[in-house]
Amino acid sequence: MQRVSMICTDLHSCLSPILVKYDPSQVVVVRDSKVELSPSVSALFSAHLVLETDESRKGIESVERIWDFLLEHHVTRSGVLVAVGGGVLTDMAGFAAATYKRGIAYVNVPTTLLAMVDASTGGKTGFNYGGLKNSIGAFCQPVATVIYPPFLKTLPPHEFLSGFAEMLKTGLLESEGTTPRLWDRLLQYDLDQVESDEGLSPLIASCIAVKERIVAADPTEKGLRKALNLGHTFGHALEEIQMVNGQWSNGKWLHGYAVLYGMIAELYLSVSLLGCPREPLQQLTQLMLHYYGKPQCKCSDREQLIALMRQDKKNERTAEINCTLLRRIGEPVINQVITPSQAAEAWDYLFSL
Amino acid sequence: MQRVSMICTDLHSCLSPILVKYDPSQVVVVRDSKVELSPSVSALFSAHLVLETDESRKGIESVERIWDFLLEHHVTRSGVLVAVGGGVLTDMAGFAAATYKRGIAYVNVPTTLLAMVDASTGGKTGFNYGGLKNSIGAFCQPVATVIYPPFLKTLPPHEFLSGFAEMLKTGLLESEGTTPRLWDRLLQYDLDQVESDEGLSPLIASCIAVKERIVAADPTEKGLRKALNLGHTFGHALEEIQMVNGQWSNGKWLHGYAVLYGMIAELYLSVSLLGCPREPLQQLTQLMLHYYGKPQCKCSDREQLIALMRQDKKNERTAEINCTLLRRIGEPVINQVITPSQAAEAWDYLFSL
Repeated sequence: MQRVSMICTDLHSCLSPILVKYDPSQVVVVRDSKVELSPSVSALFSAHLVLETDESRKGIESVERIWDFLLEHHVTRSGVLVAVGGGVLTDMAGFAAATYKRGIAYVNVPTTLLAMVDASTGGKTGFNYGGLKNSIGAFCQPVATVIYPPFLKTLPPHEFLSGFAEMLKTGLLESEGTTPRLWDRLLQYDLDQVESDEGLSPLIASCIAVKERIVAADPTEKGLRKALNLGHTFGHALEEIQMVNGQWSNGKWLHGYAVLYGMIAELYLSVSLLGCPREPLQQLTQLMLHYYGKPQCKCSDREQLIALMRQDKKNERTAEINCTLLRRIGEPVINQVITPSQAAEAWDYLFSL
Repeated sequence: MQRVSMICTDLHSCLSPILVKYDPSQVVVVRDSKVELSPSVSALFSAHLVLETDESRKGIESVERIWDFLLEHHVTRSGVLVAVGGGVLTDMAGFAAATYKRGIAYVNVPTTLLAMVDASTGGKTGFNYGGLKNSIGAFCQPVATVIYPPFLKTLPPHEFLSGFAEMLKTGLLESEGTTPRLWDRLLQYDLDQVESDEGLSPLIASCIAVKERIVAADPTEKGLRKALNLGHTFGHALEEIQMVNGQWSNGKWLHGYAVLYGMIAELYLSVSLLGCPREPLQQLTQLMLHYYGKPQCKCSDREQLIALMRQDKKNERTAEINCTLLRRIGEPVINQVITPSQAAEAWDYLFSL
């Protein structure tokens, strides 16, 4: 099946040609409770499930609610599940669709910037299990991803910044394609003026294009795709320490924040281990101090963070810590094994800022 | 990765070259409690999980036990899970492997005839959910399937007959390849003399070859693979009525029995709707009366059985009943929609035998 990824200004006229291929009784939606749909868009669906989602509810119980919903509405293998929400919701809905009757079609309608530029492209689906982020999941591509930027108008600022961090990561991976480089275009974007949509859609489109290109070359992350994990080895540990300790704070500690902190730690190692120029590290640090604030962890968390990193699913071997580092902008280096003491040094650097 | 399917007379010397490619600390096994492994085979694994399995325990709880086991032993994406048991176990272990960290390698070592000729080939994995058989699952091929016929020496007779029913189904799908036809070779096999292994291994090999050929042509069951569902639309309803009503009897009501009864109902419809010769229907009926016994359901179950068929995941549209029927041996016809009254007629025929 041909896959579609599009940015649109009218959600109804964008979705209906995708959904018209399915029996109308087999077109159902799962939607985040924080998102409203217009009556005309709502009318596209024969059944609606509304879920309250956040990282702490990204568990098997929520996946089961989606399975139950599909069974109750007798959705068949010819049906389609449309997922409207942030990355937590689209990840879980994608997994539920990938495994319901061994796989039905699904469409992503991401409503947060993070989901638009990251989660909803690339076919990674899953949920948190055993205290580990996304430890259970499947690779399964949506039949379409529909980006509707007006959803961002009601997005809280910290959610916007969370998504922007993944865009910054994408910018670090790309040195070609546009002039100026994506990284420089992102740095020029005025984060104090996000209300005006102008200038954002082209950046979103560029980030999705970079990600799609990388994913197409390596859909199941055997090699090149690992470049997208920049910032995520350290970032996931920050997220997991909160999951383990039950400290999910309300909105201050979103995925993109963790990735931003993770990128700083990993750029620090990129400078010391691969001779990466210091400039992007300094630029990211400035953005952090100006917009994101410092991480809420402290040096005493260091040993627990390192223990969590040793369990990361990105590791090839038990207890080894595997990162993506950067030689320079546009030149990621995957499968870099670092020692616990190097990890400790990077955490110390981050916490000292 | 090259996939391997082999029949072997020495399990250790067959498994070790497959497993030697993996870090020894990352080679783990999940085994059915009814199966014993020799010390030399056991020594191939760094960790062991023993599960009691039967159809009533093919649920999310058992899948979670396997996920927990993999997490506890810090299995990484480079690890491999070996599944030793019947189809219930290999289906669940395959699903757990397919979804753990978005997919690790697994090897099937089927220990029942049914698992050897059916479940362990073809990459269908999953578990029962919401009262429906295998309603959650994934298509994911094992890296190897290792058939060790001596496991069958301790198999109870009804388990043997259950597997033989799937072999009979395979025989109905194939008219070429060998002389005499697979179907005739199966009818010549002496079910009163199963203790002597002679003659069985070539039949197992033929059945696996037929299935592998069909699966290779259509791995995710978009078309041709549906031929393998012969007997399963009616058969699954028989299994589900017991799951819903909590009547799993101990060993009398195995998957292959349900498929055999389902094949009789579907061959009855094949005769009346597609002009299939009556001979295979008569031959199957004789085998049923001589070896399998009549189904334990009765006419008063008919309406509930039909309601369950309308929810079958093989249906393209809600409430439609979709079967594979037979025009003649070797010529299955997929996607045959039958009416509830045709289904009722076929049930009546079966229950009248």
